[in-house]
Amino acid sequence: MSEYIQHDRKSVSVGVVRKQYFTFAEGPKAMVLESGATLGPVTLAFETFGRLSEKKDNVILLLHALSGDSHAAGYYHAEDPKPGWWDIMVGPGKGIDTNRYFVICSNILGSCMGSTGPSSVDPKTGRPYGLTFPVVTIGDMVRAQKALLDHLGIEKILCAVGGSIGGMQVLEWCVRYPERVVSAIPLATTTRHSALAIAFNEVARQAIMADPNWNGGDYYSGTKPLHGLAVARMIGHITYLSDASMRLKFGRRLQNKADFSFNFDADFQVESYLRYQGTKFVERFDANSFLYITKAADYFDLEKQHGGGSAVGAFSKTKAKFLVVSFTSDWLYPTYQSRAMVQAMKKTGLDVSFCEIDAQWGHDAFLLPNERLSALVKGFLERVHQESRA
Amino acid sequence: MSEYIQHDRKSVSVGVVRKQYFTFAEGPKAMVLESGATLGPVTLAFETFGRLSEKKDNVILLLHALSGDSHAAGYYHAEDPKPGWWDIMVGPGKGIDTNRYFVICSNILGSCMGSTGPSSVDPKTGRPYGLTFPVVTIGDMVRAQKALLDHLGIEKILCAVGGSIGGMQVLEWCVRYPERVVSAIPLATTTRHSALAIAFNEVARQAIMADPNWNGGDYYSGTKPLHGLAVARMIGHITYLSDASMRLKFGRRLQNKADFSFNFDADFQVESYLRYQGTKFVERFDANSFLYITKAADYFDLEKQHGGGSAVGAFSKTKAKFLVVSFTSDWLYPTYQSRAMVQAMKKTGLDVSFCEIDAQWGHDAFLLPNERLSALVKGFLERVHQESRA
Repeated sequence: MSEYIQHDRKSVSVGVVRKQYFTFAEGPKAMVLESGATLGPVTLAFETFGRLSEKKDNVILLLHALSGDSHAAGYYHAEDPKPGWWDIMVGPGKGIDTNRYFVICSNILGSCMGSTGPSSVDPKTGRPYGLTFPVVTIGDMVRAQKALLDHLGIEKILCAVGGSIGGMQVLEWCVRYPERVVSAIPLATTTRHSALAIAFNEVARQAIMADPNWNGGDYYSGTKPLHGLAVARMIGHITYLSDASMRLKFGRRLQNKADFSFNFDADFQVESYLRYQGTKFVERFDANSFLYITKAADYFDLEKQHGGGSAVGAFSKTKAKFLVVSFTSDWLYPTYQSRAMVQAMKKTGLDVSFCEIDAQWGHDAFLLPNERLSALVKGFLERVHQESRA
Repeated sequence: MSEYIQHDRKSVSVGVVRKQYFTFAEGPKAMVLESGATLGPVTLAFETFGRLSEKKDNVILLLHALSGDSHAAGYYHAEDPKPGWWDIMVGPGKGIDTNRYFVICSNILGSCMGSTGPSSVDPKTGRPYGLTFPVVTIGDMVRAQKALLDHLGIEKILCAVGGSIGGMQVLEWCVRYPERVVSAIPLATTTRHSALAIAFNEVARQAIMADPNWNGGDYYSGTKPLHGLAVARMIGHITYLSDASMRLKFGRRLQNKADFSFNFDADFQVESYLRYQGTKFVERFDANSFLYITKAADYFDLEKQHGGGSAVGAFSKTKAKFLVVSFTSDWLYPTYQSRAMVQAMKKTGLDVSFCEIDAQWGHDAFLLPNERLSALVKGFLERVHQESRA
């Protein structure tokens, strides 16, 4: 997702938070993944925000997108220049009010931000897994999150919230563990990855695998496939924006130049922006994790996996109350996909609210400051919290 | 553009055609390009279809897109398995009827299909230009085409026709040489490349330049940057299609498999399609030409170049009659861009017809069989031909 959000250090924040780790699936208890492969031990990095109520009835499970992590809000220390990725939404008095709710966010299985993934050391070999890491699914990610919640002694999730790939996890939670989820907010997401979304992911993966430094995924002791990963990230960034948002944000404005360079420098601001995003991303993200997480998204098909090909079938066991949100200019998971999801939910008699937010910022809109979204989330949480205690 | 068009060998064709060459700008007559750089000698490969009338009043100038060539229709020999790129439109009795019109199509400057480009030998060094080839513009391409028409003794173009980057050349012709162009059909194009279109081109260029075999553009005596060029082509193919067309064409159908591979093979048909398109493209196209032609498209800004920032200003000297065509699902050059073009043309009092064709195939639609498009083109040509002789 984009990182051009303006952060205001003076805004009320959840304050200093600490990354924690939970390890499970050790030895004979290794996870059997959807593919049939086994994986263990598994570590999940997680952070919590706010306080768990005595009745444990105020848990919000936050689920992050492709390149996110457990650090959803707050700062790691007093001089930390940048807060967590959804600090605009999570904090005292915010859309997800940490004065009222206990928020848990864990880094997804397969990532590289503290949880077990392809860059982790395989205890069997003492070397990073690389491509010997098994392909994981959205279902596997959610099962690992359930192990974490069991460990924390949390039975009920008041609300599962997430956008994009985080939204897929939200849906998977509702369908896989219907007794555990009171309500859910899937944002800017889909029940099944479209051909277009698969196409973008595949080209991004090909860009990584075309980099000779990728070396079949075995690069941790040498030079990393930085060029390939940067191109992959640039492709991603195009999909996170929209025609309209690029026109507004960049247009045909030139980068520090009175006229064209007549060479292959970045003439236009949009070129410069993409190059910068690519370069910055490779400093913090693992190329193999990019491959694994995008593959999990491509495999995501709630209808096939849980409904025999039908979305109505998939939602038939679900009991959660839903707030589904899409954004007008999101071309990665367009509104028609959210509408189809909502129709299927309604057909099964579920309590569903749906809102298409008019936003110019494309798929990225769910991460950007948006008063309407904050108010929607806040109101929905208040209602379900009240109803759950009635 | 896509190459999944079904060709019918039995359909009426213009028959066997021959590629010809025209060389100019030799020695002191070298072209002074828009950048100020000089280039010479310049060769254009071209083909003609049909017969030039005695009055030379039946000339159609066809202008091809990014990866096209002079071979717009017909076959090179009796066993040639595949006709030219617009054989569905150009031939006896077709939309552009070679029984009535004399069609000229030349490979653009900067390409690698017979015309001078970065893979051509620089006479000064005896080695391929590579990145010492000067950056050329759409205007430079059109000026080279004008030299060819002068050489052929053709004063008036009855109609300039082209889509995408070919459409940009159509517009440039009308504005740069208003006395020479009687009518014009710009298809699926724009007067100025949008930030989104620039973004896609830039990421594709970065994919090429990230390939170590690209070697600063100097690869003609070694291994070519095939991986980078394949990724660039895959990015292009996504932009040529659309969400709807991918859903119809591929959906989530798997490639020769009962279930997921749980590895990084091409699981989905859309992945397999993109990989195939990438692989096939590198056999026939030069990576440096891809860089140069996309850069020319990005620089294209008729309003800035010819109208002091105004489209109305740019079209003020034009005299051509226009048929402007856009396609509903084209997300690279969406209809609103054609509408803006048409409004500017109308404001200057030009004779303009505009049609938005309902088509699911995205930007590619202009190259695919479409009876409505053929009928539109045919009718428009008949009218302007008749009026030009009245």
